[in-house]
Parts: sequence; structure tokens; C-alpha cells
Amino acid sequence: MANWFSRTPRRVEVPRLRARNENQVTTKVDLVEFTPPLPEFLGRAAYVQLTIFENLSRAISSAPTVAAKTSIGRAAELSITKHRALADEIVEAGGAPAETMEPFTGAIDEFERMTHGGDWYENLVTCYVTAGFLDDFFVRLAAGLPAEAARHIASIYATGSGEQVLAEELSAAIAANPRLASRLAMWGRRLVGDTMLVARSALHYTEDHKSDEARIEPVFTELIAAHTRRMDALGLTA
Amino acid sequence: MANWFSRTPRRVEVPRLRARNENQVTTKVDLVEFTPPLPEFLGRAAYVQLTIFENLSRAISSAPTVAAKTSIGRAAELSITKHRALADEIVEAGGAPAETMEPFTGAIDEFERMTHGGDWYENLVTCYVTAGFLDDFFVRLAAGLPAEAARHIASIYATGSGEQVLAEELSAAIAANPRLASRLAMWGRRLVGDTMLVARSALHYTEDHKSDEARIEPVFTELIAAHTRRMDALGLTA
Repeated sequence: MANWFSRTPRRVEVPRLRARNENQVTTKVDLVEFTPPLPEFLGRAAYVQLTIFENLSRAISSAPTVAAKTSIGRAAELSITKHRALADEIVEAGGAPAETMEPFTGAIDEFERMTHGGDWYENLVTCYVTAGFLDDFFVRLAAGLPAEAARHIASIYATGSGEQVLAEELSAAIAANPRLASRLAMWGRRLVGDTMLVARSALHYTEDHKSDEARIEPVFTELIAAHTRRMDALGLTA
Repeated sequence: MANWFSRTPRRVEVPRLRARNENQVTTKVDLVEFTPPLPEFLGRAAYVQLTIFENLSRAISSAPTVAAKTSIGRAAELSITKHRALADEIVEAGGAPAETMEPFTGAIDEFERMTHGGDWYENLVTCYVTAGFLDDFFVRLAAGLPAEAARHIASIYATGSGEQVLAEELSAAIAANPRLASRLAMWGRRLVGDTMLVARSALHYTEDHKSDEARIEPVFTELIAAHTRRMDALGLTA
């Protein structure tokens, strides 16, 4: 792989799937016009994944049962493996993982603090909602990277997430205590705003902000639709 | 694999490498005479591994640098993968992971509390020392399991541990702050007692306790020698 880290820090120009001002209707909206340079993409994606892992590992430590610990363990395993693969990708591209992540830690740590739930159940919803949304988001954003990196990163995210495991834990908790439902639905609604902010901060805008917004909006509409399906799977209204 | 879980809870008799009263000199001492039945082995080993993972994930959350977080992430990944493989082995043998671990959680949770360090450095020494010792121990103990299970479990532990990564983090910390050395050496000495207790509690003794002790002792001598090498690798006296 080319050394993307030794380049001067300018916008990496990638082949566009379509011209910027061509208002053609596409069936699948995408973010490729807003993809940041590879080091920035990897630094953010790797540190977000480390944060997802830390949230999952806290959910394991404070789990009410051994069954919950061991099943959430599967989600944590998938997440730390993704983080490691993204860190390996940084090395592959000629960078150092810690240095590459460093610039993005402040905002992502703050996001982590904002999305800290009041109890174990809220924290598990945080793991479920934020990981689901952000993995979705980074997969779409990766499509705008140089082809080889885009392929690698697509395969890293294709290893799956612990979403199913978390949905099962949460559904069981809600079934056992139906009063949790409205509180967790409300918590899910609050999370989506903070999560969208973190996603948006990864986008590189052009000079034409108004046109940018028009292009970005349909992608977020799709990401929110996926969020709604995730909440539905718990029997909760998004 | 046979369903070891549906059997009546009696001692699983495994082929002995040597007769119990044969005082022959062997070059490699072993624990096969004291191996518990498969479900008990797996329940303990899987829950110990989950505890090792939880300690590592706490070390990640409280790490002083992003570099430490991401490098300890590799140790955590190896550990949670081992836990999951042991849990899969429980399912393979006809059991349920949580139920199989449950009987051993009290003592292992207490061990975890006893070995909780006063700060990040002590906690990292706990990860390094207890995981090193207990992985060594369970590998030896597994040799006494039924052949197929013994093979599977040997391959699970053969995937390696994060020992090297932890040694590097600790060595760097001690180099940066030499005053840590004596405190961490003392902490390592304290840990080894608690760790040996947890290991011993996994052994199934025969009726002849005196003869048992004579057979077990050389194994612990070897395990302690490995511990000493681990402390040496940090430049610390065991």
C-alpha cells in the first residue's frame, strides 16, 4: 500500500462515482464526496471502535449475570478485533496507530462521556445504538477511500458486530421488566443526536455548504432509518 | 464429542501416564492425576479467562495514553477470544456456558478483588502475573482431560497471550519511573500467593493427601520458576 502518511496533509482526491453537480437520481445515496484523507479516516474509525469496545467491556464488568457477561463477550471480541484490524491498517499505510488516533480522542472521549448511561441497561443501549449507527456510517464513508484501502476496510467491517447478541440481552431485560421500555426508548432517542454529531464531524465539506447539506441529508435519513429498525427489534419506538 | 455434562458427577477416569505409586523420575512433572472432570475444568478455565479479560479491559479504560490503550487491546483480544473458545467448548461438550461457570464465580470474583491493584501500574502487573501463571497452569491441567478435549484446549491456549505486550508496557513504565520498580516487585510477590491458591482450588486430590502434595509440589516449583522469569523480563526480582 502507498504510504499515505508521508504525504503533505492535503485532501486526497479519489475517483468520484459521479460528478459533484450532476443532480442525477441514484438509488443508493452515498458519502464518497465527503470522505476524509485515509489517515484521518483510520484515526477516527479506530478510536471510535476502541471506545465502542471500552463501553462493551464496562457492560461486561457490570453485567448482572454470568450469562450476560459471556454473551456480551462475543460483541466485545468482534469490536476489539475490528479496532486491531483498523490499527493494523494504519501501520500498513505507513502510520503509527496512537499518533494517528490522537487528534480525535478529545471529541470522541467527550462523546463517550455524553453517552454514558445512568445504569447497566442504558449503557447497553448505548453500546447497541452507537455501535450500530457508527459502524454503518464508517462503512459508507470508507467507500470514498482509495480503492485498496476501501476494500480492506469493507472487509474489516464485514466481520459483523455483536448487534444480535446485544438485541437479545436487551429484549430479554425489557421482557423481564416492561417498565424499562419507555426509559430505554427515551435514552435511545437522546443518543442518536450525539451519535450523529460524531459522525458529521468526520465529514470533509466542500466550499458549497448548502449543496453539501442537500447531499448529506439523504444519507443520514437512511442511517436514521436503520436506527429505527434497531429500536424496533427491541420493541421500542425510535 | 461425548456429552460430558449428562454424566453423573463422578471423577472422570482418564488414562494415566504413569501409575500413582511408581516413584520413577520423570523429566517433566505434570498434573494429570489431579485434573477435574471436563465440565469443572471448563467452567473454571472459562471464568478465569473472563476475569483476566475484565482486568485487561479495565487497564485499557484507565490507560494513561492512547498508545497503551491500543497495545493492551491486543492482549484483551487474545484473552476474550480464549474465553469464547472455552465457552464454545462447553457447548460442544453438551453444557451451557453460564451454568457451567456459575459454581466457580464466587471464589474467582474474590480472587479478582484480592488482586486489585492500587493504581494502573499495579493492575497491569496483576494482568501480567496472574494471566501468565494461570494460563500455564490450565495448559498443564488440561493434559489430564479426555484426549479430544485435551487437544482442543491445548490449541486454544496455543493461540498465545498478550504477555509480550504487557511486558513492554511495564518495562517502559519502569524505565520512565525507576521508583516504580520496588513497589511493583513487592506487588508481584503478593500476587503469586493468591494466584497459587486459585490454581490449587482447581485440583482434585486423591485420598492420600500427603503423597498428593509430594506430586503437586514440583509442578508449582516449575510454575513459580516461570513466574520468576516473567518478573525478570521486567527487570524485577520475584
